[in-house]
Amino acid sequence: MLPESITTLTAALGKLPGIGPRSAERVALHLVQTDPAIVKQLAEAILVAREKTQFCAACGALTERSPCPVCEDSRRDASLVCVVERAVDILSVERSGAFRGKFHALGGKISPLDGVEPDDLRISELEKRLANGLVKELIIALGTDVEGDATSNYLAKRLARAGLKISRIGFGLPAGSGLEFADELTLNRALEGRREMP
Amino acid sequence: MLPESITTLTAALGKLPGIGPRSAERVALHLVQTDPAIVKQLAEAILVAREKTQFCAACGALTERSPCPVCEDSRRDASLVCVVERAVDILSVERSGAFRGKFHALGGKISPLDGVEPDDLRISELEKRLANGLVKELIIALGTDVEGDATSNYLAKRLARAGLKISRIGFGLPAGSGLEFADELTLNRALEGRREMP
Repeated sequence: MLPESITTLTAALGKLPGIGPRSAERVALHLVQTDPAIVKQLAEAILVAREKTQFCAACGALTERSPCPVCEDSRRDASLVCVVERAVDILSVERSGAFRGKFHALGGKISPLDGVEPDDLRISELEKRLANGLVKELIIALGTDVEGDATSNYLAKRLARAGLKISRIGFGLPAGSGLEFADELTLNRALEGRREMP
Repeated sequence: MLPESITTLTAALGKLPGIGPRSAERVALHLVQTDPAIVKQLAEAILVAREKTQFCAACGALTERSPCPVCEDSRRDASLVCVVERAVDILSVERSGAFRGKFHALGGKISPLDGVEPDDLRISELEKRLANGLVKELIIALGTDVEGDATSNYLAKRLARAGLKISRIGFGLPAGSGLEFADELTLNRALEGRREMP
């Protein structure tokens, strides 16, 4: 019943993250009835963004120029590097406003079951960044699943050297939450991560 | 923090129906990290669908050629016309599989508050289709809100002629639902729309 070009568009949209089949069709039907100039703008925004975006050769962030603005910003503390899994995780940390150092995205987590070995990650690039001794602290900001734990431990061992502090972000109750909403593992981590009160 | 081209793309995506700001950013970040060939396919699918899609000059359906396949299908009952509000409503009726006649999309509902008068709708086109007397029944399939009721009543009066039966689709409990989930207006309509049992 639907014209073929709309079916094709619906299928393409349905492959995007978080867009189910019904949502994809709704967007497709909206687009074919929208002012062609606006539709063209959207198509061009997609192509331009894809064309311009690359990964920063230094830290792995999504950027239009490499090295990226964060790597080039001399006001940021170059002695502090936050290690994250994916380029988009850098955005999350940036939005928290809690970090003024530099970043390093690994591009994944060690996961032998999925065939991801240490050599598949940007670990040697990180070692190169550490080689000149200017970095004094490495904050490992990986998630708290099995692969995140394994990768964190692996990094802590492999990167250990005199004059470099290696820490991992804290785990525990999320902000604004209470004990009744915390699962067992979260509570476990929260107890482990307890801090002495002054 | 986000490169400008990604921000622009996020804004464009956020204007699509059912895509909120977070969802738009998620899709944008996905696209800029996707194989450029696939991204190009999506952009082209958008442009091609918009370019090819038009409204059928006869019934108002979304189609790649006018008159549309339904209007041209001689196996469909041309004596029966289902009047709907929007082109996409034709899809809903088609999917129900309960209708084998022709369609007519009005392109809206009469709504003086929004400045939509009868002349803004495709009513004179409908009158032309009725002029040769071949159509024997008109099924008005508009929603049951104030504008839908007003438009239905207006059409029934304006289009009344000898030899033309005009009906409106039934309202009541949705399939598979029970009384406990029905709001008052739905129950009201269901009681009004009661049918004698054989």
